[in-house]
Amino acid sequence: MNKFENEIKDNLDLKDVKNKRPSKYAGLDSEGISLGLAESDFEMPKEVKEQIIDAVVNGRYHYEFEGVPEFLEAAKEKLRRFNNIDAEEKEILPIAGGMNGIWLTYKVLLRPGDRVIVVTPNYPPIFGHPKEVSQAEAVEVKTKNDFHLDIDAIEKAISEKVRIISICNPNNPSGAVYTKEELEQLADVAQKHNLLVFSDELYENLTYDGRKHTSIASLDSMQERTITVFAFTKTYGMSGLRIGYLVANKEIVEKMKAENSRVLIHPGTIEQLAAAAALKKCNYYVEALRSYLESVRKHFISKLNQISGVKAALPEGTFFAFPDLSFLFTDDRKAAEYLEKEAKVRVYSGSGFGRGGEGHVRMNFCTTKKVIDEATERIHRALMLLGPRRLG
Amino acid sequence: MNKFENEIKDNLDLKDVKNKRPSKYAGLDSEGISLGLAESDFEMPKEVKEQIIDAVVNGRYHYEFEGVPEFLEAAKEKLRRFNNIDAEEKEILPIAGGMNGIWLTYKVLLRPGDRVIVVTPNYPPIFGHPKEVSQAEAVEVKTKNDFHLDIDAIEKAISEKVRIISICNPNNPSGAVYTKEELEQLADVAQKHNLLVFSDELYENLTYDGRKHTSIASLDSMQERTITVFAFTKTYGMSGLRIGYLVANKEIVEKMKAENSRVLIHPGTIEQLAAAAALKKCNYYVEALRSYLESVRKHFISKLNQISGVKAALPEGTFFAFPDLSFLFTDDRKAAEYLEKEAKVRVYSGSGFGRGGEGHVRMNFCTTKKVIDEATERIHRALMLLGPRRLG
Repeated sequence: MNKFENEIKDNLDLKDVKNKRPSKYAGLDSEGISLGLAESDFEMPKEVKEQIIDAVVNGRYHYEFEGVPEFLEAAKEKLRRFNNIDAEEKEILPIAGGMNGIWLTYKVLLRPGDRVIVVTPNYPPIFGHPKEVSQAEAVEVKTKNDFHLDIDAIEKAISEKVRIISICNPNNPSGAVYTKEELEQLADVAQKHNLLVFSDELYENLTYDGRKHTSIASLDSMQERTITVFAFTKTYGMSGLRIGYLVANKEIVEKMKAENSRVLIHPGTIEQLAAAAALKKCNYYVEALRSYLESVRKHFISKLNQISGVKAALPEGTFFAFPDLSFLFTDDRKAAEYLEKEAKVRVYSGSGFGRGGEGHVRMNFCTTKKVIDEATERIHRALMLLGPRRLG
Repeated sequence: MNKFENEIKDNLDLKDVKNKRPSKYAGLDSEGISLGLAESDFEMPKEVKEQIIDAVVNGRYHYEFEGVPEFLEAAKEKLRRFNNIDAEEKEILPIAGGMNGIWLTYKVLLRPGDRVIVVTPNYPPIFGHPKEVSQAEAVEVKTKNDFHLDIDAIEKAISEKVRIISICNPNNPSGAVYTKEELEQLADVAQKHNLLVFSDELYENLTYDGRKHTSIASLDSMQERTITVFAFTKTYGMSGLRIGYLVANKEIVEKMKAENSRVLIHPGTIEQLAAAAALKKCNYYVEALRSYLESVRKHFISKLNQISGVKAALPEGTFFAFPDLSFLFTDDRKAAEYLEKEAKVRVYSGSGFGRGGEGHVRMNFCTTKKVIDEATERIHRALMLLGPRRLG
């Protein structure tokens, strides 16, 4: 039994999971299971816990305007080792979680009237924030049916006003892991039209069937025009610790740092130390989680596919299943409502992730075996009840 | 020996203070003492440390979109008890430190071209942010010579475009503690002209000579038009934990919460729990700190006043001395430069706090007896050297 299996054992009690995840379980009754919010049901690595306790005991919780050196150093080393990105410390910015990175990107780089091409399905703030943050406009471009990039459609959507192309890779919610080849094609398009690329890579560690994560910033000449966001929320179970980091060129990082200093001074010192420990000491945890989720995924997806009318592709990465329920429901919002009511399982409707998500629902399977098995049974039973009917 | 004296003992080593406060000590050589940055040299209360460790061990570090209930409840109780503000939980917002509250206020409540009256001297973001955040304009109004509110000057500065009057009470940097009477006069002006009031009350616990802190929001009919910001950065020694809270009317809080959710989702869960512990369990700490600073203050100020050409008023509150050095230096920036170079003591120049601060320097005396005594000696020696000369 490896260390991570210990962590899983510590998490077997659903009641405990629920009590400690009030947002994931908000509004669900005592029998409900949430596969909704993108939050891990596992505790964070013990090395991270130890680091926080060490910081508290040893007085490392004061202002650090320039970023916690251990964190910058660990991020730099990890970017080189894992992402093949050779970044100086001035090109790395500690951020208060992935959302903070999205906000900073659109805040600093867009002006009113600018456009952003957003490949969908995608994490909603990636197409919602351009307008809300900078009175700019998101132009959605759907992926191909297999949720991979439709390079022609992306290039066709480019106009004078477009400044950024935004992707999420591995993709939330579809699980697609973009190949090096398709990213090279996207990189060519970005360079040809002199565009920036925003890449949300929060799920970089969760890729399956031997797939390797490629950071678009690692491709030739792309580092200077790419903003890549990483965080600890998902894989490390650290959602309430608002911490992540981004990589971009020095000028952009400098502007973002100034912007963040006006908003919150800097991300928490303890969180930065915790993040450093995660990067330096917890590869075993991430690999164990990946391997656990890879096996859960197979069982979960095969169970979903036993239901007539459900088409569930095996996700290439992330901890989301994104089955197509359009044969059973005319509207994916109805599908989510039905499952929450009839199966007492919360899932997210796919159209919330943009036009590219329509007809689907997102199911977060980053939970214990016991919980996912129970959820699978309930979903199975509720959808089987529908028989050949199409609802909604 | 009370619990806080233990904390002081734990903090006697200047080297340790310096190593753990890289921003306060940035750029100072090994002999340098920083009375610059507004950061406490004391460790945070042990109850706060214990709460953080408890949160880590017991898995309370996940998303809490609606705010940590213990924190909201503790803030509500403290507002009633200490500030005489009767707020519902929907009128209280957890924020990522005082800066986050300033940013949210100007972001949500100002439009381009609006004006904000800012009483100076004041904390620089309070007059800098209107423009940087919302293309609005700060109109500085100097206090009277004793650093108390010049109500007539404030009323004269009101125009059609003014939306907010911003104060910091107890005042950073002058130490002035506004009386109930002058706040009532300010409240009358705000009501007469239908203006909002922004009140930064980070130093509310540090008032001397029997003075009582008055929150302007506690005055008749003021709660609905006042945004009051509180934080843990200063008094509790928790600068790197980005946490505070604000009180305002429900509509404003709702808009601010939505804005913050786009920027950082929510302030850290562990920080919110830590803040709850500070409010619930650490009155003894705050009172011990207050009483310690009250005695340090007398010694420090009397030593400064022994220097010919220095006029140092006894601060009514906060942990800042704000002596007038205009007889010795034509420019307060030169005064700060001279002290950093000749005395190896960092202080902040007063004009950084607005026109109302010109001629003065700010000295943070929230440090151990040993450090403040050494700093006092060095300042004394360096300024005495000047003799009757006037520099700069």
